[in-house]
Amino acid sequence: MSMQIGIGFLGAGTVGGTLIRRLIFESDAIVAKTGLQLVVEGIAVRDVRKARGFDLPPELLTDRPQRVVDNPNVQIVVEVMGGLDPAGPLVRRALESGKAVVTANKELMAAMGSELLGAAESAGVSLLFEAAVGGGIPIIRPLSESLAGERISSVLGIVNGTTNYILTEMVENGASYEDVLAEAQQLGYAEADPTADVGGADAASKAAILASLAFGMWVDGDQVPREGIDGIEAVDFHYAKQLGYTPKLLAIAEDAPEGIAVRVHPTLVPLDHPLASVRGATNAVYVSGPSIGELLFTGPGAGGEPTATALLGDLITSARERLARTQVSSRIRFGRGRLMNPADMTTKGFLRMTVVDRPGVLARIAAVFGKHQVSIKSVWQEGRADEATLLIVTHESREGDLQATAADLGRLDVVSEVGTVLRVHSDEP
Amino acid sequence: MSMQIGIGFLGAGTVGGTLIRRLIFESDAIVAKTGLQLVVEGIAVRDVRKARGFDLPPELLTDRPQRVVDNPNVQIVVEVMGGLDPAGPLVRRALESGKAVVTANKELMAAMGSELLGAAESAGVSLLFEAAVGGGIPIIRPLSESLAGERISSVLGIVNGTTNYILTEMVENGASYEDVLAEAQQLGYAEADPTADVGGADAASKAAILASLAFGMWVDGDQVPREGIDGIEAVDFHYAKQLGYTPKLLAIAEDAPEGIAVRVHPTLVPLDHPLASVRGATNAVYVSGPSIGELLFTGPGAGGEPTATALLGDLITSARERLARTQVSSRIRFGRGRLMNPADMTTKGFLRMTVVDRPGVLARIAAVFGKHQVSIKSVWQEGRADEATLLIVTHESREGDLQATAADLGRLDVVSEVGTVLRVHSDEP
Repeated sequence: MSMQIGIGFLGAGTVGGTLIRRLIFESDAIVAKTGLQLVVEGIAVRDVRKARGFDLPPELLTDRPQRVVDNPNVQIVVEVMGGLDPAGPLVRRALESGKAVVTANKELMAAMGSELLGAAESAGVSLLFEAAVGGGIPIIRPLSESLAGERISSVLGIVNGTTNYILTEMVENGASYEDVLAEAQQLGYAEADPTADVGGADAASKAAILASLAFGMWVDGDQVPREGIDGIEAVDFHYAKQLGYTPKLLAIAEDAPEGIAVRVHPTLVPLDHPLASVRGATNAVYVSGPSIGELLFTGPGAGGEPTATALLGDLITSARERLARTQVSSRIRFGRGRLMNPADMTTKGFLRMTVVDRPGVLARIAAVFGKHQVSIKSVWQEGRADEATLLIVTHESREGDLQATAADLGRLDVVSEVGTVLRVHSDEP
Repeated sequence: MSMQIGIGFLGAGTVGGTLIRRLIFESDAIVAKTGLQLVVEGIAVRDVRKARGFDLPPELLTDRPQRVVDNPNVQIVVEVMGGLDPAGPLVRRALESGKAVVTANKELMAAMGSELLGAAESAGVSLLFEAAVGGGIPIIRPLSESLAGERISSVLGIVNGTTNYILTEMVENGASYEDVLAEAQQLGYAEADPTADVGGADAASKAAILASLAFGMWVDGDQVPREGIDGIEAVDFHYAKQLGYTPKLLAIAEDAPEGIAVRVHPTLVPLDHPLASVRGATNAVYVSGPSIGELLFTGPGAGGEPTATALLGDLITSARERLARTQVSSRIRFGRGRLMNPADMTTKGFLRMTVVDRPGVLARIAAVFGKHQVSIKSVWQEGRADEATLLIVTHESREGDLQATAADLGRLDVVSEVGTVLRVHSDEP
């Protein structure tokens, strides 16, 4: 005996197309495993005549997404069109008319998640988004359900496969950012316009979602300060490795005494940290808390198949809830909290500079750090001819003080170059 | 505004006591994060006068567990007494009287899970058991919900912290099994009677639960063939390392052409496999499937705090469902399937033997492998005086054929010793 549920799609690109194909061609396996017959009732696409990898039943296709949302046979809407508009209004309309929604749209959830989850709760339906962060890695459900009773201290995530691929290639092959990006674009690992990935916006959306679930306080994506990998130089990685670090673009959400600190930036992690060995397009989320200690979730962060699996899991949960005539998965509670000011967040810093190699220079440089209350943890110097490369790792410092230090250093006549300030994550003091 | 739910405890040992303490002393934080007031209404213990780490309100204590189950103020029962009897009948009674149950009892779930989940479904209440496998690692929910739509190929788990601690110490310090076990007992990492851990029974219960959820077919714990680490010799690890392997006690559940293959045994894994670097008491579960590729979940596999966190997550889910007047989490569907016969399961084997070092010996040994259709992948020999140590790694072979080969080898006059047959896991052919 199986129960039938009507599914409508908004979008049929790589991820949507993969899921539609599985619902149609693997229907028997899904029924056998879950008892659910998930019937595709409508598919909204931009161009109904566009050729796809497989034939979509033409009678299901429409270029008017509202038709899918309003179709009385559709009980669950799968939103995989991406972007904020028209995805946002369509999702809201679906929820308000009593349909459950499953989405992979991190940008939408980061921008309108609080509002949309509220609309879902008012309508008594569920809005699930496991696919929005970490692709095929189950992380939304573990954070919002399994760890609902934990006072999470921090969540660190490698949540963008494109940038992790680029950083891995740069570190392992010593190639330049530009060369690796061009290669990644040829291989399809990076989009033609890679801005959202390399600039950190994609990771910032995911950081906002992870922070919201971990700390029970809604964080909008645009509140997350982000720095991408587009300004990064391979020479820094060479030196970082000598000091025992490797670079990762981390989404960081921490419970600090002065509030919740959320940010995205290239971060040097110690080579023996579990996140250091996450290579290529793989994603990982590292959760710490006083009771659970450390949890690490690793897996494929993107791609049609893994993301479709995450959507399908949500679809099955949503269908089960539908049949039980209730919704529980959206019952996430968001309280009030304080989001820290970017300049007040603290971090260890890594500064590389080129300096004149003569007596007294280090004292003048150290004085700049002292002026800004930035305490030096270690210094490493490599001389060549009359110049030297100087690397300084600081103790935990205010972000604003680190930046002010770097700016002041650039004004010293004995310093000919100051590299990008890189942050260092380590559990050591 | 918060909703109140009455909780009853069966057991107040390390895990139960930790959770009770958190429900009492961290009640405000739980209300703030979830909106739920989880009120302890009764606690069944063996000895009401026993001193504990903190004062339990004496009016809540009883040595008659049925009182907790029958208490009309108790809506959710937390079973942390362990074992099958009286835990099984008590859980069944609680479910039948319409109470939800949250349990950490892997032995009970492996033995009676199918029956108890059926009782929960009939009564329209939930039975949750995230804490039964992997301690604080969320794995039950990901497998049964997030991956509900995946055709999982295999689940490999390091699911017993005691044995992983012992194996790690043996490998890293070259110590003997007996010495490390004694040390682990002193440190509290192994129990006074370590049989269930070192003999593989604990891992077998968890393997049964993982297999049931991954393949949607109920597997009883006693159907799982298991071999522990109690017969293991440090010398094998020394040689295994030379060939690029490290030993792990793996719970393995695989979808094979002839059925589902579930087993627990010491297994050599390649040093570059993600499970190879899981050290000490840490647990890990590695899930593979055609769409999701590989997922790895790592974290603390035991201990009062992590396990209490898993129970609390289930308690919150269960309370949310209770308030929504439904149960969905137990709606796991178990179909029919075939469990493979232990002798027919296939694996690569590692055999160490001491042989007479003279011409013609290898040919005689190779003939024994050939007779049993076991194909040799690699041979490594180290001579000393007139004896030699011979290591042979086989290609994928039937378990029964490997054991028959080892038995026959032991009967050859040129072989003076045959070590334990170790299985090798590797993704290479």
